[in-house]
Amino acid sequence: MSFTAYAQNGFKVVPLGVNGGETDGNLSAYMLAPAGSDAYVCLDAGTVSNGISAAVREKTFSVDAETVLKKYIKGYLISHPHLDHISGMIINSVDDTVKQVYAMEHCIGVMKAHYFNWQSWPNLASDGNAPALNKYRYQQLTESAETAVKETEMSVIAFPLSHSKPYTSTAFLVRCRDEYVLYFGDTGPDEVELTGHMKRVWAAVAPLVKSGRLKGVFLEVSYPNAQPDRHLYGHLTPKWFMKELEILAELAGKAQMRNLNVVVTHIKPVGNNAETIKKELNEANSLGLRLIFPRQGVGLTLK
Amino acid sequence: MSFTAYAQNGFKVVPLGVNGGETDGNLSAYMLAPAGSDAYVCLDAGTVSNGISAAVREKTFSVDAETVLKKYIKGYLISHPHLDHISGMIINSVDDTVKQVYAMEHCIGVMKAHYFNWQSWPNLASDGNAPALNKYRYQQLTESAETAVKETEMSVIAFPLSHSKPYTSTAFLVRCRDEYVLYFGDTGPDEVELTGHMKRVWAAVAPLVKSGRLKGVFLEVSYPNAQPDRHLYGHLTPKWFMKELEILAELAGKAQMRNLNVVVTHIKPVGNNAETIKKELNEANSLGLRLIFPRQGVGLTLK
Repeated sequence: MSFTAYAQNGFKVVPLGVNGGETDGNLSAYMLAPAGSDAYVCLDAGTVSNGISAAVREKTFSVDAETVLKKYIKGYLISHPHLDHISGMIINSVDDTVKQVYAMEHCIGVMKAHYFNWQSWPNLASDGNAPALNKYRYQQLTESAETAVKETEMSVIAFPLSHSKPYTSTAFLVRCRDEYVLYFGDTGPDEVELTGHMKRVWAAVAPLVKSGRLKGVFLEVSYPNAQPDRHLYGHLTPKWFMKELEILAELAGKAQMRNLNVVVTHIKPVGNNAETIKKELNEANSLGLRLIFPRQGVGLTLK
Repeated sequence: MSFTAYAQNGFKVVPLGVNGGETDGNLSAYMLAPAGSDAYVCLDAGTVSNGISAAVREKTFSVDAETVLKKYIKGYLISHPHLDHISGMIINSVDDTVKQVYAMEHCIGVMKAHYFNWQSWPNLASDGNAPALNKYRYQQLTESAETAVKETEMSVIAFPLSHSKPYTSTAFLVRCRDEYVLYFGDTGPDEVELTGHMKRVWAAVAPLVKSGRLKGVFLEVSYPNAQPDRHLYGHLTPKWFMKELEILAELAGKAQMRNLNVVVTHIKPVGNNAETIKKELNEANSLGLRLIFPRQGVGLTLK
């Protein structure tokens, strides 16, 4: 085991929004930084300021909300351009400082065409309909190269995902020195989407699981198991969530999966679905994953 | 005075979101219904479900949040397509019931092109990129004809506004029997925008003020007076807010303005701007308007 050779301090996470719909003050957004640092990147940005206010109330931060928004968040990683993953970033852009926005090509194209276009919102970004006010700087990510997250100690590789064909989404593998976190945006299972996108991500991170360097995975579950496969709309259920993680387990070894941090994201809180999903996940957790159900504003540690 | 001949019961308002920026769980949206009715229209829709939850917590409603969203809100009136006025409606559309969306032609065009387009969001609307799932039904408003708000006792006339040229916004004159409410979306002052748009609205409602049939006005103030005119970006300050209402007073008579309900909307809560704006408005209120500073989830009566 080369585990100890890589032992560092892990990551901290502040969830700014955790749900996959309906609650328009609590939508997917997770601040991530290496332990000991206040230089965060924000993974998706459905809700920003409302989540920062919650975190300040929870005393997760000891500084004020303005400092968190303007100074702690150094950039945004956007998995896909659906409004519930991007609305908060756009709405807060007017009063924000200069920042980088990292995404794959298609996602940046949608931001240019449909959001920062002067019709939906002033173009505060670095490209697109003139005048481009150049406060938010588009940084295009690819699968083939690691990109530094500016003003932080982190870097990122992006992997394409399928989110109900032909729509795409992204997984981000974030690195700080020799430690990693893997974040999935919305995604359907390979078997339903008829792709090998998730498999490719699992293959890439399996060596990191084996060596204990993958400190956490963020993976979505939108619906309970009762949702039929033909109505997944590019999402996972507890059954598919565990099936996908079993594929990683085959590659990395089941023993290495025990106590792996897996943050459950994007639950659609319709009726009592949230409780049903938690129950279904816990009952199916034969791998012994450390399942984490995040709460808005309440900090987490991944190590 | 023909006042008593028209005396009815006025309107009730439930603010779902009140701010003009930053707070991505508390953005412009006002449920409006005639007193005694639970058939509401929602004026703009920056924040929807988060505001409904606040109103349920405040006991403004005695039913649950799902009933308010699905049954009480019969339709949306959208003043302009900036994200802070429309994000909540779009995000909640997936789990919503069939509903009408009323707006002027340009605004509907932006919704089709940039929101309900399958890239930013599934097309749950009645037109635009195929397949149009036809849950939200576009209803185009004009200045020349009154449009019935379906499943309610109300009807509406739309007036164009200027929101930093060439961008447009809308004022809605809502009627129930012989009583009226006037709602302004974001707007710059005529003198800065170099238009006569607001003047035309004031001329249309002056007879209603004279006869006591205008039960309330919603008007925006985004910045304190310190904001220079060249940086208004199509908004009002307390000075311009009062200047515009003075124009109405000239047409309707100052005596008729006393105690007119004016709901102050769209304050951008940066620093202590909210307090500054309240102070500046109260000090400049020589007309004796009943200025109302709405709070998310706290019901109001306009009569």
